[in-house]
Amino acid sequence: MNTFFMKEAIIEAQKAADLGEVPIGAVIVKNGIIVGRGHNTRESEEVAYGHAEINAIKDASAKLGSWRLTGCSIYVTIEPCPMCAGALYQARINEIYYGASDPKAGACGSVFDLFSVEGLNHYCHVFPGILSDECKSLLQSFFRKRR
Amino acid sequence: MNTFFMKEAIIEAQKAADLGEVPIGAVIVKNGIIVGRGHNTRESEEVAYGHAEINAIKDASAKLGSWRLTGCSIYVTIEPCPMCAGALYQARINEIYYGASDPKAGACGSVFDLFSVEGLNHYCHVFPGILSDECKSLLQSFFRKRR
Repeated sequence: MNTFFMKEAIIEAQKAADLGEVPIGAVIVKNGIIVGRGHNTRESEEVAYGHAEINAIKDASAKLGSWRLTGCSIYVTIEPCPMCAGALYQARINEIYYGASDPKAGACGSVFDLFSVEGLNHYCHVFPGILSDECKSLLQSFFRKRR
Repeated sequence: MNTFFMKEAIIEAQKAADLGEVPIGAVIVKNGIIVGRGHNTRESEEVAYGHAEINAIKDASAKLGSWRLTGCSIYVTIEPCPMCAGALYQARINEIYYGASDPKAGACGSVFDLFSVEGLNHYCHVFPGILSDECKSLLQSFFRKRR
């Protein structure tokens, strides 16, 4: 199941690439059903928080009619940055499944680990490395083309 | 000038209180002019990232026509949470002026300090304690009424 949903996140990442955006995608899942989808829209929507995770939270909250995404998991192709890891705990997401690590901005263990900070009012369980090679190669080929 | 802009952020916080939202407000300033305003809309818009800072980023980006808020400062009544501190560096905000510290979720020194993490691609300068008593008492009277 993990790879099934990560493949859906990769489809979202591909949509970002098609728009000339850094190819990162995400889906939010509740009870085995996708309730939210998102991909990077920073350049096309001109807003710094237009990351895949934030857009997926927006979509899932609209579908579920609540800001509380309790019982939901997110599948995201790259390790969330501090903003997105923060947004995922604010949204009460249960589990974060991510593909490739981000040694430049990852906030789930790479640059630092937000969920090792004591005193937060919610913690997400983090599962790294789902289809990581596929997720990473999407990014690599995108940046290779832009050079 | 710092207190002038913080008073504008407090006006935003009051708008949140009037909506039954936790009273936190923010303004974004460039070259001495307010280019973005925001207040909490989490409950009224049903989205977990509906914090004052995120809404102010949205407003400023729309006004300036760019996701890059280079040369901008934010004035926010309460210390930013991890999500918002992350969003402010993603938006390339230069300075964060905040009112009251947040011992429960503050990511600029209280629960932890995002800007002490090495390796981020941008750092915001942080100035705490601007009209902090006024900012804190707004929150306190809001929570007192709800008990």
